[in-house]
Amino acid sequence: MINIRTDLALEAKELYSEKTTSRLEGVNVNEFEEEDIKITEVKITNQAGEKAMGKPKGTYITMEIPPFVQYDGEAMEEAAQVLAKQLEPLVKVEKNQTVLVVGLGNWNIVSDAVGPKVVEKIMITRHLMQLVPDEIDENIRPVCGISPGVLGLTGMETGEILKGIVEKIKPSLVVAIDALASRKMHRVNRTIQISNTGISPGGGIGNNRMKINEEALGVPVIAIGVPTVVHAATIAYDTINLVLNQIKEFSKAEENFYSFLGNIGDAEKERMIKDILNPYVGNLMVTPKDVDMTIESMAKIIANGLNISLQPALTLDDINTYLS
Amino acid sequence: MINIRTDLALEAKELYSEKTTSRLEGVNVNEFEEEDIKITEVKITNQAGEKAMGKPKGTYITMEIPPFVQYDGEAMEEAAQVLAKQLEPLVKVEKNQTVLVVGLGNWNIVSDAVGPKVVEKIMITRHLMQLVPDEIDENIRPVCGISPGVLGLTGMETGEILKGIVEKIKPSLVVAIDALASRKMHRVNRTIQISNTGISPGGGIGNNRMKINEEALGVPVIAIGVPTVVHAATIAYDTINLVLNQIKEFSKAEENFYSFLGNIGDAEKERMIKDILNPYVGNLMVTPKDVDMTIESMAKIIANGLNISLQPALTLDDINTYLS
Amino acid sequence: MINIRTDLALEAKELYSEKTTSRLEGVNVNEFEEEDIKITEVKITNQAGEKAMGKPKGTYITMEIPPFVQYDGEAMEEAAQVLAKQLEPLVKVEKNQTVLVVGLGNWNIVSDAVGPKVVEKIMITRHLMQLVPDEIDENIRPVCGISPGVLGLTGMETGEILKGIVEKIKPSLVVAIDALASRKMHRVNRTIQISNTGISPGGGIGNNRMKINEEALGVPVIAIGVPTVVHAATIAYDTINLVLNQIKEFSKAEENFYSFLGNIGDAEKERMIKDILNPYVGNLMVTPKDVDMTIESMAKIIANGLNISLQPALTLDDINTYLS
Amino acid sequence: MINIRTDLALEAKELYSEKTTSRLEGVNVNEFEEEDIKITEVKITNQAGEKAMGKPKGTYITMEIPPFVQYDGEAMEEAAQVLAKQLEPLVKVEKNQTVLVVGLGNWNIVSDAVGPKVVEKIMITRHLMQLVPDEIDENIRPVCGISPGVLGLTGMETGEILKGIVEKIKPSLVVAIDALASRKMHRVNRTIQISNTGISPGGGIGNNRMKINEEALGVPVIAIGVPTVVHAATIAYDTINLVLNQIKEFSKAEENFYSFLGNIGDAEKERMIKDILNPYVGNLMVTPKDVDMTIESMAKIIANGLNISLQPALTLDDINTYLS
Repeated sequence: MINIRTDLALEAKELYSEKTTSRLEGVNVNEFEEEDIKITEVKITNQAGEKAMGKPKGTYITMEIPPFVQYDGEAMEEAAQVLAKQLEPLVKVEKNQTVLVVGLGNWNIVSDAVGPKVVEKIMITRHLMQLVPDEIDENIRPVCGISPGVLGLTGMETGEILKGIVEKIKPSLVVAIDALASRKMHRVNRTIQISNTGISPGGGIGNNRMKINEEALGVPVIAIGVPTVVHAATIAYDTINLVLNQIKEFSKAEENFYSFLGNIGDAEKERMIKDILNPYVGNLMVTPKDVDMTIESMAKIIANGLNISLQPALTLDDINTYLS
Repeated sequence: MINIRTDLALEAKELYSEKTTSRLEGVNVNEFEEEDIKITEVKITNQAGEKAMGKPKGTYITMEIPPFVQYDGEAMEEAAQVLAKQLEPLVKVEKNQTVLVVGLGNWNIVSDAVGPKVVEKIMITRHLMQLVPDEIDENIRPVCGISPGVLGLTGMETGEILKGIVEKIKPSLVVAIDALASRKMHRVNRTIQISNTGISPGGGIGNNRMKINEEALGVPVIAIGVPTVVHAATIAYDTINLVLNQIKEFSKAEENFYSFLGNIGDAEKERMIKDILNPYVGNLMVTPKDVDMTIESMAKIIANGLNISLQPALTLDDINTYLS
Repeated sequence: MINIRTDLALEAKELYSEKTTSRLEGVNVNEFEEEDIKITEVKITNQAGEKAMGKPKGTYITMEIPPFVQYDGEAMEEAAQVLAKQLEPLVKVEKNQTVLVVGLGNWNIVSDAVGPKVVEKIMITRHLMQLVPDEIDENIRPVCGISPGVLGLTGMETGEILKGIVEKIKPSLVVAIDALASRKMHRVNRTIQISNTGISPGGGIGNNRMKINEEALGVPVIAIGVPTVVHAATIAYDTINLVLNQIKEFSKAEENFYSFLGNIGDAEKERMIKDILNPYVGNLMVTPKDVDMTIESMAKIIANGLNISLQPALTLDDINTYLS
Repeated sequence: MINIRTDLALEAKELYSEKTTSRLEGVNVNEFEEEDIKITEVKITNQAGEKAMGKPKGTYITMEIPPFVQYDGEAMEEAAQVLAKQLEPLVKVEKNQTVLVVGLGNWNIVSDAVGPKVVEKIMITRHLMQLVPDEIDENIRPVCGISPGVLGLTGMETGEILKGIVEKIKPSLVVAIDALASRKMHRVNRTIQISNTGISPGGGIGNNRMKINEEALGVPVIAIGVPTVVHAATIAYDTINLVLNQIKEFSKAEENFYSFLGNIGDAEKERMIKDILNPYVGNLMVTPKDVDMTIESMAKIIANGLNISLQPALTLDDINTYLS
């Protein structure tokens, strides 16, 4: 089957609505806006919702950031504040409890490096509490961070590495940042998804990759994701459907033909996609040319949002002074 | 009009043959193979050929390198030897004449950085002739190199910068390495095009960019290019055509419909492409996920091929010892 | 002779005063403070001054920045404003005249990379005036920039490259940023020297390197330098002198011995230094462990100072928005 | 007390011999040469040896590599073979047992990055055994690798992170690569120390850093170290001693003075060193200018040596093909 992959709950819901008109059970959607940022909260509340959406129960909050924000320092700080506000109900830890921030993905591949880039910008404090406790404000929360690499670089499942570290460090919360695939180009590098479900990898070799969630690690896991690519197969698939729909419009009069078009199935479409993307298929990514710069901006927004959220006793100015 | 962009003469010829059955005047094509590498030599010999191909008169040699080569040090050295052999008839300079190697492109964008990566690996010798002439073998050719950046980074046309340098340094030959766009995914990061025509940028803002060729610089210019991307618009365009062709096959019986399909023109296709790639269109690139590694391999092959070609008195071992 | 190298006019004056008590002719020194930054203005006014200082006639302004500044975003902006103020009397160009900013040094060597790092942060505008003149505020000055590399990387004298570019681009002013060597550790990565004399390389292979000044390029050249290293030989030399001075204090009573100590000459000291630094001597640098981070801070201060100075019609906020 | 730091057992022994003429108990030294590489094996056999050397019981093998090797690909491969031969008696694991390679140090600081650079070049195979067991030669050993960062970057002790990972992955051997400080410039970036004692950090804040050895991790730990810096304080200290020794030679006739010089103690020397290195002292490193390139060469030698040693069923050509 063709895998029109999206990691965004928002898009999973859109796909569902495209394919069927039946009511979506077990899924609540709530939309609002803050500071020009469109926020969609998708709650999957039961098994029916899980099945329809292909995602586990939980809360998924999507922030869609206007394009200009990435080129405007002040607007980026506002976006970080909005992110911090969305995180607030999810970060349920006491102020002296430890948080572990994890940057998932391969730092050698630009479009996969957003997680490691965020960790570089996180205010790391846990060691200071131990080494120089008297010089550190008691309101500062102990935060630690790591980018564990990917299976091909380390030979170890990221889940194994994290489980080992979590058992030693015993954080009260894990926040994992990852690069995602979306279905629509206009969401690439402009969207942040926050969820309290952790990360459930899937597809291809990844099938036997461990989950990174509360069940696996033993502590709550907040996942923060940024779509940085659309799979080329998705572009090709959407193109095919668009062409077919256009033709269907014109061919309604010609009954035989109309039904023929309706019979072009997924197998046929998949054959065409393979033809076009040969020899790559699975590993072709579509990215804007300036992906390097925009990923840096998104990493800054997320890191600032997390820093504000994890250190409520500090202002963003305090945090910047600490970090620079 | 939709710009199905290709920088490869080989593909320009393929596109011509797809669109028309009339004989291609003023273009000679010659195909052969060396060490598993398919080589196509396209010679554009007159104005008719220039117009049909959209490229200036001259020789364009394309090497298509089998995929395994990039993962095999020995095969990479063989590919470099094949490249050096193709360069030989084009590099018409005496052994004591200076060659300037130029790495075009933006080093901050992985898929554009192949030129600067090659220059890093070139055996730079010109200064040694001046500083320590007695220690340097008289058979070593003076070679210098620079990666001048791109307009957005420097505020200066690359052509202006190079013209200024060429007038001071007075090389007898310029070799310019650049990243290209191809039309077919299977050529990305596996193809090297060599031409004696220099580089003629075109399209968009680039329209007023200076040419980098013998006319502009006053010395012969060999261009070496590697396609590192396919434009997403090309993927979408090819998908549309594939779908239409498939349907045409099935609809031959239904005359009205067949002619309707034939009437879907470029304007209509362009509208669909914009719809799918919104809001990016022009700046969307399709790249394999491991582009970082394969570009490094291609840069190594090209640099080695150039080093062998420019320093015929040395073995590849000598060159490697010098460089490491 | 031992080369206790300093590129700072401030330190050349200190060295002079250490060695002799005779009045320093042709050199005026003026000290003041702005925003906790100590500023020393050294003016060399005639040939006697040139000879005593080992530097060409002109104005040398040294800013010594307090250590905390590099870890405080706001203090860094203040330092940039102070730098802009010092540059003002030196930047004598009309608002519509072009300025070329040049980053000297080898970007592959951290302690030599401050120039290229500054150029990355400069607001490049010259091309916009040409491409989209209607969208650009007429008060914006055309600025272009380049980091030409070093002789070993390009095979070309930096002076040759720059002369070629200057003849094509015809800027009204060149600003060249370079890494320097100082004599005292406490000035490393904390000091900025501005001069209107350009750059006159000297010592070792550099003897035949071209000057980068008004005489060579045909336009005024402002040099901005940051000492990023102390030569290890300087550390060893200062250590030897310190030990000898200590012992002299104690040995004044013992006349013979005191005169013996006085007779330990430079040749003897040089032998000891070579002994200690074997086998490196000339190429050993002493750097603080966190040189990577502090050089980044210094580059930010200089780039901001230059941006403010070159674009008087804009605020620093405007500039940051443009750059990010 | 002045900390003339050396991490090399070879130098600890030299220092001991400088300070005293009494026999060194519990330490056996054995010197030989292979392929122009001088090899010194220091065995510390009992508590007396531990105390005299300031290092735990075990075997320390030091390879001193001639300077030309780093610029000669073939000589580098020979050095890797010599390293593999030294590792052989220490790597006591069955061919199907897992080895974890750990790159210690801060990848953002060039002179500290040799460990992470080695891990990048290690043949990682463990995941292939699990994902595609049928395609993998049964003689290939499962190897995994990680560079865990440093306390300041992660907020976690490296020892904690590694202990967590080791408990999950259960390797039979850990190999840890780290940058060291030596006492003599001529050993910097030319020396490799191998030991079966693991790593015992010490000095300053490091005092409470966990050991990375068999006792801490529960599996044998081989440490491989490369001295990449000499502390500036060591340079200053050695300079002081050299000056004093020179003067003592001349002052033997003057009895009073000779005894005065003998009385200049460590406290006095420390004061002078602080004076010279002010305000840095502890964090000043002396490095050759080309440290970036030579560290890359050393990382290649160590990675190749480890790859040969860990994969005895493969040739170096096989390994290079796999890695490139």
